[in-house]
Amino acid sequence: MKEIDDVVNQLKFDEKGLLTAVAQDYKTGEILMLAHMNEESLRKTIESGQAVYWSRSRKKIWHKGEESGNVQNIKEFLIDCDGDAIVMKVEQVGGAACHTGNRSCFYRKLEKGRLVDVGFKVFDPEKVYKKK
Amino acid sequence: MKEIDDVVNQLKFDEKGLLTAVAQDYKTGEILMLAHMNEESLRKTIESGQAVYWSRSRKKIWHKGEESGNVQNIKEFLIDCDGDAIVMKVEQVGGAACHTGNRSCFYRKLEKGRLVDVGFKVFDPEKVYKKK
Repeated sequence: MKEIDDVVNQLKFDEKGLLTAVAQDYKTGEILMLAHMNEESLRKTIESGQAVYWSRSRKKIWHKGEESGNVQNIKEFLIDCDGDAIVMKVEQVGGAACHTGNRSCFYRKLEKGRLVDVGFKVFDPEKVYKKK
Repeated sequence: MKEIDDVVNQLKFDEKGLLTAVAQDYKTGEILMLAHMNEESLRKTIESGQAVYWSRSRKKIWHKGEESGNVQNIKEFLIDCDGDAIVMKVEQVGGAACHTGNRSCFYRKLEKGRLVDVGFKVFDPEKVYKKK
């Protein structure tokens, strides 16, 4: 698709072929997670309208929610000034983005020099990821 | 400071010694920019209460706003589940985070296969960065 090629050409993948992607709740503005995309996952993201990342730990394409069902439907897709980062405003199906069951991966907050858990737990990961 | 050491020890810097930092407007939730921190800049960030990054292009500590005056006062500091990314909710002095003069670096939006400028221009970069 020519349109996707135009977009891909304006992005700058790093020396590992990755760019950084941030998912943000489209209604509340809460930042849900930060992950990475290679060109293939970026194309799949744009084509499918759902977030598809590159898992650096598992070294494979990772269609977010493929196991938990918690897919991210993209409402808005933004790129930054130097083209190496994107923000997706998403509808987080299931209400939780984090594999820990928290709504957001950013559930630890610095308070008076200590990290405090301020997460909102949506599910029990042991029940959702049965293969664990 | 022991407290800072405790926090630093819970973070995972990548093979280049960096982690990813996202700055978000503490009032509106708008994502302003994405950049990187090494351990030194992270410590300076926590100590000063203002965002201090590592500039990968200039290869030096970059106290955001040092030139433009547009510092970022941190209201909330969050880290993610695997400790390699942080979110800072900030008060963006001057109203603009991007060197282009836009409020946010994420001023290009994908619409019908094309990137459209949806930025809110706060200042003229030629006037602010005189040394350019």
